[in-house]
Amino acid sequence: MSETEIETAVEPAAAEALHDEDDRLKSSFVDAVIECVEQGDFEGARSLVRPLHPADIADLFELAPQDMRRPIASAIAGLLDGDVLAEMNEWVREELIEALAPHEVAEIATQLDTDDAVAIIEELEEEDQRAVLRAMEPDDRAAIEEALSYPEESAGRLMQRDLIAVPEHWTVGHVLDYLRKNEDLTTDFWEIYVVDHAHHPIGTCKLSWVMRTPRAIGISDVMQREQTLIPVDMDQEEVALRFQKYALISAAVTDPSGRLVGMITVDDIVHIIQEEAGEDILKLSGAGDGDINEPILETVKVRLSWLVVNLGTAVLAASVVGLFQGTISGLVVLAVLMPIVSGMGGNAGTQTMAVAVRALALNQLTSSNTARMILREFRIAIANGLCLGALIGIAVYLIYGNRDLGIVICLAMIINNIIAGLAGILVPVSLDKAGADPAVSSAVFVTTATDVMGFFSFLGLATLWGLHG
Amino acid sequence: MSETEIETAVEPAAAEALHDEDDRLKSSFVDAVIECVEQGDFEGARSLVRPLHPADIADLFELAPQDMRRPIASAIAGLLDGDVLAEMNEWVREELIEALAPHEVAEIATQLDTDDAVAIIEELEEEDQRAVLRAMEPDDRAAIEEALSYPEESAGRLMQRDLIAVPEHWTVGHVLDYLRKNEDLTTDFWEIYVVDHAHHPIGTCKLSWVMRTPRAIGISDVMQREQTLIPVDMDQEEVALRFQKYALISAAVTDPSGRLVGMITVDDIVHIIQEEAGEDILKLSGAGDGDINEPILETVKVRLSWLVVNLGTAVLAASVVGLFQGTISGLVVLAVLMPIVSGMGGNAGTQTMAVAVRALALNQLTSSNTARMILREFRIAIANGLCLGALIGIAVYLIYGNRDLGIVICLAMIINNIIAGLAGILVPVSLDKAGADPAVSSAVFVTTATDVMGFFSFLGLATLWGLHG
Repeated sequence: MSETEIETAVEPAAAEALHDEDDRLKSSFVDAVIECVEQGDFEGARSLVRPLHPADIADLFELAPQDMRRPIASAIAGLLDGDVLAEMNEWVREELIEALAPHEVAEIATQLDTDDAVAIIEELEEEDQRAVLRAMEPDDRAAIEEALSYPEESAGRLMQRDLIAVPEHWTVGHVLDYLRKNEDLTTDFWEIYVVDHAHHPIGTCKLSWVMRTPRAIGISDVMQREQTLIPVDMDQEEVALRFQKYALISAAVTDPSGRLVGMITVDDIVHIIQEEAGEDILKLSGAGDGDINEPILETVKVRLSWLVVNLGTAVLAASVVGLFQGTISGLVVLAVLMPIVSGMGGNAGTQTMAVAVRALALNQLTSSNTARMILREFRIAIANGLCLGALIGIAVYLIYGNRDLGIVICLAMIINNIIAGLAGILVPVSLDKAGADPAVSSAVFVTTATDVMGFFSFLGLATLWGLHG
Repeated sequence: MSETEIETAVEPAAAEALHDEDDRLKSSFVDAVIECVEQGDFEGARSLVRPLHPADIADLFELAPQDMRRPIASAIAGLLDGDVLAEMNEWVREELIEALAPHEVAEIATQLDTDDAVAIIEELEEEDQRAVLRAMEPDDRAAIEEALSYPEESAGRLMQRDLIAVPEHWTVGHVLDYLRKNEDLTTDFWEIYVVDHAHHPIGTCKLSWVMRTPRAIGISDVMQREQTLIPVDMDQEEVALRFQKYALISAAVTDPSGRLVGMITVDDIVHIIQEEAGEDILKLSGAGDGDINEPILETVKVRLSWLVVNLGTAVLAASVVGLFQGTISGLVVLAVLMPIVSGMGGNAGTQTMAVAVRALALNQLTSSNTARMILREFRIAIANGLCLGALIGIAVYLIYGNRDLGIVICLAMIINNIIAGLAGILVPVSLDKAGADPAVSSAVFVTTATDVMGFFSFLGLATLWGLHG
């Protein structure tokens, strides 16, 4: 957010009427804008869009059909500024930016804080990046280029360079005068950093403390010395967890020599927490980043490659069934019942896996308690297996009047539940230990284990037991 | 967070050494504390724990084995304060609080902001709640009782009552003097609310703006009139989305008559965003709230009830196979191949469902774009179905040398992928429209559809085609 929002004054009542109960723009409003644009009434479209918050203008583009997005952009020209782009879904933004000339992108990026500008520029093709950077002022360019030199998704990309740092010998009065007299300082800060002569942060001061302290008191007597510093190369997911754990509003970012180089504020972190916490469900299902604005070919490619891997494991599981064709042809009802055993194992394994993936993502599963958690899942698996095995065993006995078939399916169910529980926790934990993302690949291994072992235990036991029609 | 953290001063270097790379306490540290407690060296335990941040003391309890938690609590007595409890996992906290007398709980709750105190008290049994409230000071009791009168998970439970509200005719100088002279005001605020004579909020002012403005300027000239107000009965998930959408740091909470009754700050929202975004994966798998600290019986109950529902749907799908026993006994390889068709449908359906559930949770799927998204998923399903159908069809033909079998499995795969895509989006969207939580129950319907239709299309086509050995 830059300062532009200060100028936007909307009557809350009017704003309310534009939104549905989900706080998104009503489709009637979106349609009204589209109608203006289609009829060439650009002034009409602008007067509808002008009172909106940047986040709502961004929504407008996301909610409009794809082929209307560029016409809307041309119609409302000046209103599509950096704040709107910063709030926009990345795919929709990419689509719009591709239509702009480099100097237009450069102009928009210049209005933004470094972090928001970087978010826009880092997504461009390398050639377009260079063209945009060439069109920028040298100062802005240097700041963006430095940010781009840090790894993707690192603190260095997230941080903004504009912050308030004051020397430790200043008083509160010095700080207030400094803030009032220097008009070009940022207005977007919540804490003040106190630094030593080498520009190392030695304390942080909430603005509320500064305001409640008489002018003559030294800033170093007000500041909090215990600080949570963020190394510039820290991964954004770790940054987000640290913000959450210590309930931070902003945090100083330091380079490897400990110098203060930037600041991250919680409003940039909230998006990351949302994304990182929500993306596990998409990764586990192999739906890529699951964005509904992603180009459809991209989506098919991502999903299909996952499905092909799963096709391989399905064929593997089927080949286990193939080993027992003789047993099945002797008693066809085995083919009827076998998907129950494998499917229930899959369900139980998915439960344990979801819990494990979540606990790993939240750093709740650590070396101190992994053994305890494996034992916990083992006990849960036995309890579930006994209940489900008894249920299906009795049902099969009653339906088919075959006691041995009931016993076999009961035992297979117990075995496959235990396999499911163990695979459900051991697979994600092992992947995590090996440095892989457990959310991405756990599901393949767990469902392969429960399918293969489901078929093998049921059909194997049936063969051993000598079941036949 | 209350003020106590200001007093805790830790050398960053020392603090660093206690943490593993996930920013959690090292197990060697946890073990050291446990050893002190077991040997009766309570002073040793206290000296280890004293320098820790409240969030880390909370971690210590979560990481320690269950039977050591109460002994540790007694050993470090005074260090287990309200801030630590506020940071603690709810199950671990409940366990500890049950062991405390009501007056001890009351004393701890009194140290906290209303929102944190409510979070602790709302989890107690009703009888214990009354005992704790009786032991509190009348003022604190009234605040907590009022908060408890709002629905669970509503803004009223989340908000804190301590905030800074000033009349619109004040100058910046008035505000600064007011803050400096009134020592009992909260220090935990990031924005100042400007109210009219009826205590309706008419503007918000970031502290940085106040600090950068000369004393003589009126506060109403600095404030931002466009505000995002939170109704006191709004659901916490909606509150979180609003904070995220408008990048809020704090927001005023108003009662139905529009009066300012409280404030919510982003540090309390970050936990909710994390929870709400992460819990969909647990809900979809039927793992309840999936907390690794939940008592094991509770966990078995939640997971088992979900598995029993799934057992019902698995039996339903099996009964479809049962219809085709004649066809299978004529060509047993159909039993070998049928789990591939149903399983792949399940995988494809889960992808679409994960995307839809996520988009619904983020309010990205609205009335403006639902029809477009259904069409999008339909096209993706056809593309995936054609590719997977061709792959498996050719493979089956090559392996079994049976052209008709290859054609049948190819067609069944295409049909089931389309069923999967449509069910994957229509089920969550319909549940959402009907007011149900799509994350909780979508999976049962989608996998039932893909299992039933997978078996039905494959075995049905095989029967129609007259396939036999």
